[in-house]
Amino acid sequence: MADPRFYPVNGPFSLAQLAEAVGAEIGADADPDRLFGGVAALDQAGPGEVSFLEDRRLLPAFRNTRAGACVVRPDMAGEAPAGTALLLSTEPHRAFAKLAAAFHPMPEWEAGVHPTAILETGARIGDGTRIEAYAVVGADAEIGAGCCIGPHVVVGRGCVIGSGVMVGAGASLLFCRIGNRVIIHPGVRIGQDGYGYVLGSAGHLKVPQLGGVVIDDDVEIGANTTVDRGALGDTVIGAGTKIDNLVQIGHNVRIGRGCMVVSQVGISGSTTIGDFVMIAGQAGLSGHLKVGDGARIGAQSGIMRDIPPGQTVFGYPAMPYKQYMRQVALLARLAQKKGS
Amino acid sequence: MADPRFYPVNGPFSLAQLAEAVGAEIGADADPDRLFGGVAALDQAGPGEVSFLEDRRLLPAFRNTRAGACVVRPDMAGEAPAGTALLLSTEPHRAFAKLAAAFHPMPEWEAGVHPTAILETGARIGDGTRIEAYAVVGADAEIGAGCCIGPHVVVGRGCVIGSGVMVGAGASLLFCRIGNRVIIHPGVRIGQDGYGYVLGSAGHLKVPQLGGVVIDDDVEIGANTTVDRGALGDTVIGAGTKIDNLVQIGHNVRIGRGCMVVSQVGISGSTTIGDFVMIAGQAGLSGHLKVGDGARIGAQSGIMRDIPPGQTVFGYPAMPYKQYMRQVALLARLAQKKGS
Amino acid sequence: MADPRFYPVNGPFSLAQLAEAVGAEIGADADPDRLFGGVAALDQAGPGEVSFLEDRRLLPAFRNTRAGACVVRPDMAGEAPAGTALLLSTEPHRAFAKLAAAFHPMPEWEAGVHPTAILETGARIGDGTRIEAYAVVGADAEIGAGCCIGPHVVVGRGCVIGSGVMVGAGASLLFCRIGNRVIIHPGVRIGQDGYGYVLGSAGHLKVPQLGGVVIDDDVEIGANTTVDRGALGDTVIGAGTKIDNLVQIGHNVRIGRGCMVVSQVGISGSTTIGDFVMIAGQAGLSGHLKVGDGARIGAQSGIMRDIPPGQTVFGYPAMPYKQYMRQVALLARLAQKKGS
Repeated sequence: MADPRFYPVNGPFSLAQLAEAVGAEIGADADPDRLFGGVAALDQAGPGEVSFLEDRRLLPAFRNTRAGACVVRPDMAGEAPAGTALLLSTEPHRAFAKLAAAFHPMPEWEAGVHPTAILETGARIGDGTRIEAYAVVGADAEIGAGCCIGPHVVVGRGCVIGSGVMVGAGASLLFCRIGNRVIIHPGVRIGQDGYGYVLGSAGHLKVPQLGGVVIDDDVEIGANTTVDRGALGDTVIGAGTKIDNLVQIGHNVRIGRGCMVVSQVGISGSTTIGDFVMIAGQAGLSGHLKVGDGARIGAQSGIMRDIPPGQTVFGYPAMPYKQYMRQVALLARLAQKKGS
Repeated sequence: MADPRFYPVNGPFSLAQLAEAVGAEIGADADPDRLFGGVAALDQAGPGEVSFLEDRRLLPAFRNTRAGACVVRPDMAGEAPAGTALLLSTEPHRAFAKLAAAFHPMPEWEAGVHPTAILETGARIGDGTRIEAYAVVGADAEIGAGCCIGPHVVVGRGCVIGSGVMVGAGASLLFCRIGNRVIIHPGVRIGQDGYGYVLGSAGHLKVPQLGGVVIDDDVEIGANTTVDRGALGDTVIGAGTKIDNLVQIGHNVRIGRGCMVVSQVGISGSTTIGDFVMIAGQAGLSGHLKVGDGARIGAQSGIMRDIPPGQTVFGYPAMPYKQYMRQVALLARLAQKKGS
Repeated sequence: MADPRFYPVNGPFSLAQLAEAVGAEIGADADPDRLFGGVAALDQAGPGEVSFLEDRRLLPAFRNTRAGACVVRPDMAGEAPAGTALLLSTEPHRAFAKLAAAFHPMPEWEAGVHPTAILETGARIGDGTRIEAYAVVGADAEIGAGCCIGPHVVVGRGCVIGSGVMVGAGASLLFCRIGNRVIIHPGVRIGQDGYGYVLGSAGHLKVPQLGGVVIDDDVEIGANTTVDRGALGDTVIGAGTKIDNLVQIGHNVRIGRGCMVVSQVGISGSTTIGDFVMIAGQAGLSGHLKVGDGARIGAQSGIMRDIPPGQTVFGYPAMPYKQYMRQVALLARLAQKKGS
């Protein structure tokens, strides 16, 4: 279960309370008054804890779990061990996420500006916002209500941050407008100059970067990720998009709503990504491309052309998934023949 | 146009002033006294703004632009819409970069050491230099004139920094000598130990890293990039080389002059790169290689051998561009046959 | 030799002292009383310095070295130039690392908490530990003896750090337990939320991340690397494992003992890595995989399946090394035929 050193715990809650909290049905024969004190993974949960099963590959762990209760889809309920009460849900992981949040709610922060934080002239801070030690908020910057700005964060002159935003230690936010409920992890770099030069043998001329960065509501940005500001106009990250660690977003990139951008992806300048696009780890996209809504890009793929909506691509250079698999299989077959 | 929240603006300037500033010729019929207030992209510029066209792929946007003026090559001038005054230049992007800098010059910083900055014993700071909040400058470090050292920057003991250098928030500079007019973006890590061990089943022995980092004039280093110091001797980055975000430079790497190293590239220890080499995003280079002057390395390429001067390589493992394209095309053809 | 600006030097030492310090044999005819003042690379060492030869590829440099002494394997001793005294060792690089440390021992730090460092309620600091400027140590955190915590470091509430640990500038350590003699370089991000969501078209639901990070003894973690905490249970890095710069370690990854993880590698959530595994630069591993003890993963490889112990894999998708080489060679041959 969650280490009490780090995670204070609410509860205990009865099975009936848990079922109601997540809209699950209690399995046959389970005691609705049985109490639970926390959550844990299938292979680590004990009789006082709740776990969940979503992925069929974990069925063996489910069959052997000692968890006192488990959220599970009705069609897998038959595999449950005796002694494990069931909470039936069509979306066990979603239900479990809510349970976990019930046992371990996000800690509330005490509002206030740490005496070592620096607010430059004209900076404005909303109600209930906390500014931690050694943070520096530039002139005329605006930070909304209920935010938590971590230690050593830098918010540049004139930046605008909405409400309920969390910014992790040491992040720097420059030339940006950030929406509500955005989460920015430690070490994120937003709004520095994009990589723009006019090349020349006598020296590369730096092109002034005169745009900004716009980050919409409910975006999350992973640790040490970098988002350059636009050269002219803005770099934009749409509402609800989730970006992992160590991702590079070039100048004037526009990412739509609800995208998933996994760790170490690189998106070059001026590329436009639609809504609900999935980009797996370490993929790279050239500049000035268009990726359609709902496209899926495989890990480590190299994208050098536009991708139509809904298409799944893999490989280097990237191609439609079936074509990629055919090439991989063909090459394996040919090499085996020659080798035999 | 540039957001006045972030970018103060100079001007307005007349067409004649702009033409003179960048050495462009005013197009036929244009009014040299017409005034302009800023710059913008082709698709966003209005009648009071100047834009530019360099890339043929943007010709459609050029034909439909509402920009009051546009810098363009003489051979594309015929495509201009009525109402857009032309500034004819053989290098429109270069001319535009200068225009943009005329409208939005780099802000001057107020010299001075912030009262919270720490200068350890023997640290020396040049005239006109600004040291921002919570920066820490180590003993005997020397920082030249006209520098701007951002908040939370750490300059290690004994480091030497030239004049006109800008260092972004939270960067750490250790064991290094840095030239003039260098730009270091937020979160850059310079001079930490390289990755050097003598492997052994009883434990890997750390090899003391006793070199430094030398960064020549006019280098730019992108956010969160890492440059390890040499094991023996220095890691060196030559004058005018531009490095993007999240790049890894291993110990004792030597990069020549005027190179372009795009985001997320990794260069392993002791590899030597010539002058004016281009390395596209996410490419990786093994250690102890030599890359000749003017070589070009494609995105995501994997370099395991020396590359002669002027050669363009692609792929994994990397090969000359034509050979790579032949392999890609062949594999596609074969797989299609088998699939049909 | 090592720049005295950065590296204070011990010595001089006689050849006999050096031989004894590293358990090497003095070569024939060498004067055991000859004095040496430092170490340098083969091509830069002078008569007062010691160098080493391990890699056969450096034999030409060895033949031409001006080094006063050189550590070398007995079988290469015959190639030595006149005037270079030899120190014979079966492991020259290991011996040299010890020599280098004798000339340039790690500087001792002065214990003490900088007046600007913030220790929140209940934080405990061991004897001989140094906390540098503007570091922030959270409530109830415990830091052992003989540590050096760099400037602007953040140690989160409740974290536990062993003895002899070094943490570089600006690193953030949250929700973690760290062993002894661990080295954490600048900008490292440990313990932030993993990338966990339940996807949905109405918005991706964030899954509470309720685990921690456990880092065992003698681990080293490179600059700007990110290690997410577990969702349930811990992310674990085993004793003696060395991680390079800009690496991504996802939530609930478990890495064994003595592994080498080179720069820009990405390891996705819940993947388990055995002991003494080598992962070369920019390789990527999918989630929920198992990599056996002693496996070796080539640079830029894309790992989508389990890897048995001891296997060497390359390529995208990764395959056993021989198979990979066969495919590379076959494709090259076929393309050449068609092209001819």
